[in-house]
Amino acid sequence: MAQTRILEPAENAHQYPLLIKQLLLSGPRYSPDQEIVYANRSKYTYSDLVERIHRLANALTDAGVKPGDTVAVMDWDTPRYLECFFAIPMIGAVLHTINVRLSPDQILYTMNHAEDDVVLVHDDFLPILDAIKGDIQTVKTYIQLTDESSPKSTSLDTAGEYESLLAAAATKFDFPDFDENSVATTFYTTGTTGNPKGVFFSHRQLVLHTLAMTGSLSAYDEMPLLRSSSVYMPVTPMFHVHAWGVPYAATMMGIKQVYPGRYEPELLVDLLKEHKVTFSHCVPTIMQMMMATESIKTADLSNWHVLIGGSALTKGLCDAGAKLGIRMYTGYGMSETCPLLSTTHLKPEDLELPLEQQTAKRVKTGIAVPMVEIEIVDPDGKPVPHDGEAKGEVVTRAPWLTQSYFKQPDKGEELWQGGWLHTGDVASMEPDNTLTIKDRIKDVIKTGGEWLSSLDLENLISQHPAVAGAAVVGVPDEKWGERPHALVTLKPGEQADVSDIQNHLRQFVDSGEINKWAIPEQIDFVEDIPKTSVGKINKKLIRDQLK
Amino acid sequence: MAQTRILEPAENAHQYPLLIKQLLLSGPRYSPDQEIVYANRSKYTYSDLVERIHRLANALTDAGVKPGDTVAVMDWDTPRYLECFFAIPMIGAVLHTINVRLSPDQILYTMNHAEDDVVLVHDDFLPILDAIKGDIQTVKTYIQLTDESSPKSTSLDTAGEYESLLAAAATKFDFPDFDENSVATTFYTTGTTGNPKGVFFSHRQLVLHTLAMTGSLSAYDEMPLLRSSSVYMPVTPMFHVHAWGVPYAATMMGIKQVYPGRYEPELLVDLLKEHKVTFSHCVPTIMQMMMATESIKTADLSNWHVLIGGSALTKGLCDAGAKLGIRMYTGYGMSETCPLLSTTHLKPEDLELPLEQQTAKRVKTGIAVPMVEIEIVDPDGKPVPHDGEAKGEVVTRAPWLTQSYFKQPDKGEELWQGGWLHTGDVASMEPDNTLTIKDRIKDVIKTGGEWLSSLDLENLISQHPAVAGAAVVGVPDEKWGERPHALVTLKPGEQADVSDIQNHLRQFVDSGEINKWAIPEQIDFVEDIPKTSVGKINKKLIRDQLK
Repeated sequence: MAQTRILEPAENAHQYPLLIKQLLLSGPRYSPDQEIVYANRSKYTYSDLVERIHRLANALTDAGVKPGDTVAVMDWDTPRYLECFFAIPMIGAVLHTINVRLSPDQILYTMNHAEDDVVLVHDDFLPILDAIKGDIQTVKTYIQLTDESSPKSTSLDTAGEYESLLAAAATKFDFPDFDENSVATTFYTTGTTGNPKGVFFSHRQLVLHTLAMTGSLSAYDEMPLLRSSSVYMPVTPMFHVHAWGVPYAATMMGIKQVYPGRYEPELLVDLLKEHKVTFSHCVPTIMQMMMATESIKTADLSNWHVLIGGSALTKGLCDAGAKLGIRMYTGYGMSETCPLLSTTHLKPEDLELPLEQQTAKRVKTGIAVPMVEIEIVDPDGKPVPHDGEAKGEVVTRAPWLTQSYFKQPDKGEELWQGGWLHTGDVASMEPDNTLTIKDRIKDVIKTGGEWLSSLDLENLISQHPAVAGAAVVGVPDEKWGERPHALVTLKPGEQADVSDIQNHLRQFVDSGEINKWAIPEQIDFVEDIPKTSVGKINKKLIRDQLK
Repeated sequence: MAQTRILEPAENAHQYPLLIKQLLLSGPRYSPDQEIVYANRSKYTYSDLVERIHRLANALTDAGVKPGDTVAVMDWDTPRYLECFFAIPMIGAVLHTINVRLSPDQILYTMNHAEDDVVLVHDDFLPILDAIKGDIQTVKTYIQLTDESSPKSTSLDTAGEYESLLAAAATKFDFPDFDENSVATTFYTTGTTGNPKGVFFSHRQLVLHTLAMTGSLSAYDEMPLLRSSSVYMPVTPMFHVHAWGVPYAATMMGIKQVYPGRYEPELLVDLLKEHKVTFSHCVPTIMQMMMATESIKTADLSNWHVLIGGSALTKGLCDAGAKLGIRMYTGYGMSETCPLLSTTHLKPEDLELPLEQQTAKRVKTGIAVPMVEIEIVDPDGKPVPHDGEAKGEVVTRAPWLTQSYFKQPDKGEELWQGGWLHTGDVASMEPDNTLTIKDRIKDVIKTGGEWLSSLDLENLISQHPAVAGAAVVGVPDEKWGERPHALVTLKPGEQADVSDIQNHLRQFVDSGEINKWAIPEQIDFVEDIPKTSVGKINKKLIRDQLK
């Protein structure tokens, strides 16, 4: 370690710990009257938000919550959830954002594993808890959330309803200072094998993620993502990596926020129109559903900018969006990375290009955001060339990466090797530092001694005009080791057969984008492609079914 | 202290220290071919910048610099200086930015006090060092900087010339990781009494200041301060609080940078025109000099946005700038605060207002930026009301405030009281959180039991059409305790006498802006108003002269 001049204790007496409460300072200061909207139900101002966060902190404390406790939330995307994003960590407790799309058994597992002390639960999820309550081990208190005039009945013994508790609570809470390395949030990642794993983020990490996100996303020339005049609506759930951390950044900047509640495509489009939303983040599946609505045809979406993540942004989706005026960008990250690692970065001159040429840039995984190091490495951990061709595993260093998995240090050691977090993604990097994810390491198809990207193939198949979606997995093959096997869903009313798809792929052989041996012999037309609880293609299940 | 769940060591094994080297990651990645310009002399790209920083680190190491050493720089505002901003802290040494406007005796004091090991010195400042070299105590090595084909001759024994050393150095340096609380930079503040005091900032503090600055300044609707398409030119010196920290932020975002070298008004205006500069920061004096040039009359400055600091932005200057198309904003901070604390914050609807009404908002001290707490307190440290009237001392907490003064812990204890940094400024705060600095505590005029702001009076006097500048100090008065005494400079060719100024001020009595007793009996017309080395009105000297 270099012998630098480190601040003496007396020279560092007023060190300011990085705490989530500081993210709440500037937004209400800039824009006390700015609105926070709950779908078509209600709205309030930033001043109200601050008061409600103070009331919630008092209500939770009155209900027995202490620093170090874990408080879980099961809710739709609501301003209530935003209040929990702040109040729970700000009192020194840990916010557990429960993935309500998991099976009841998995939810039970995560609640017991996280050692939840208190659970805030929306009416709609009461049946889950009613069913598993006998096996919940650590929860002492339930608080009900409702969108109706009175909460639904439940067999749970609850401490009351959220709004009533807030109304009864004092309006001022004295939020303490504490160590910035205190855990602020936790949630569970769902692999395709084994139990969910608990990732966790400290106050310091969330503050740094927010600051870097605000800087990098505001500085885009085209994207008015986080400026005073922006209007933000999340379309990835708040339980999933804190809705990518954007609610923290939006609140810090004091911009208008619209929370949609449930993800009903017609409702989402209505909210876009009514509030002139300028920025969202979304997974491709939901974007497709929104673009299939009737009402989107009459919407002016020329100011709507969308960061697409979760799975790859395809050229087809990006182009279809562009025709509606929607500007899409790829955002890359994962639960373990808080999540932001890279985004598409269009330079001022790129924005002069025709839309189709812009699309080619938008669908790339992008360039690492400030403060993030990204490298691609071979199985020995050695960097591979940045020539746009060579593939390697994406590894990263940044100030906001989860350090381990809760109570699973062995899994944490697998995640971190040689001082870098290993993402499990395979990518190439161009000389200009643009990353393009090619596959998950475990989904790469090894055929005839070559690596074939299942994502590349899915992307090309999905460009066939009749195709709605595609999934490609490797299946064992005596001669070649593995061969690609495709599942394809068709758009309503469209027709295609195996040879149509193969012929479609041949044009990309001619243009040099793929090799001839990449064309699958096996192509099945299916009703639905199996997905995980967070909407990713469940390749493990597909491989199991094909066995 | 709240008993939060602090990360266990095993849960925090991959903590990422915040280091200045990380600020250099994203700019060259986003914009490897983006230009960094040195006045009308030369330019190079971000890729070149990175290589030159590596070469400089090798050259300094070859010259004996070790982590923990102090490396001082005496240069104009140049890309060389930018290279020093990065390379010196990145090798673990401390960058001492010498204030070249101090007297040779004061420069000698700061060099000995900071314990400089190595000095990089421009030709133009060699005479200073030649004169004091016998008394310089710790410097082992001098490196010459020149803008000519060969360096000037000097009696100093130098290790060589900067460009030659870089040319001979290896192109790759392996910058180490180290404790984020290591000192990165130091420089000296000049009060009007006593020796200069050494402030210092850690890597952590500079990284956090940069991240928060980038977010807050990029998010302005009107100000394209730090976006991909911005063009940045500093017009406050790089030795003074790292040119307000903006070179770090601009480099992180990969935007075009123009370094002007010396501050010659005609040159500055030419550079604005040639490079279509969009963002600068400046003190009022230099802005006035630029606005007095012939060439500014033919410049299109409608895209030039300027953060004004150092001393108050007056309505007169802001309005005169607006007529030329220049949009000015107040930025507030001080050497001890790294410096950014607050900026004027115009909301989208404010930008619809007529220019004169915008001016009223632009000249306020503004709203605290993200992560900064600002309060105004009475002499007992108790907050005074935020009613736009009550005055109190401005105190602040933020993650980037200097913790003390180097080797003067007693002065540090005066700076920090009750956990807040005391700025010595007196201000009021409006209910919407807008701060307006009224005076320095020591410059407030106490007359007839009331506090009278010398800045308010200067601002009103300067609105007289014949007036170029004004300074007001309190002078002892038997009856009233103190009375205001004004020094006034007139614009070339303009005339005014004492009663003109007093009559001018009476309109503000009628409009209720000041009380009748605020009008000075003593008004002197002078050629020049005494200024400090950083361009602030030297009120101590004025008071001494008036005695």
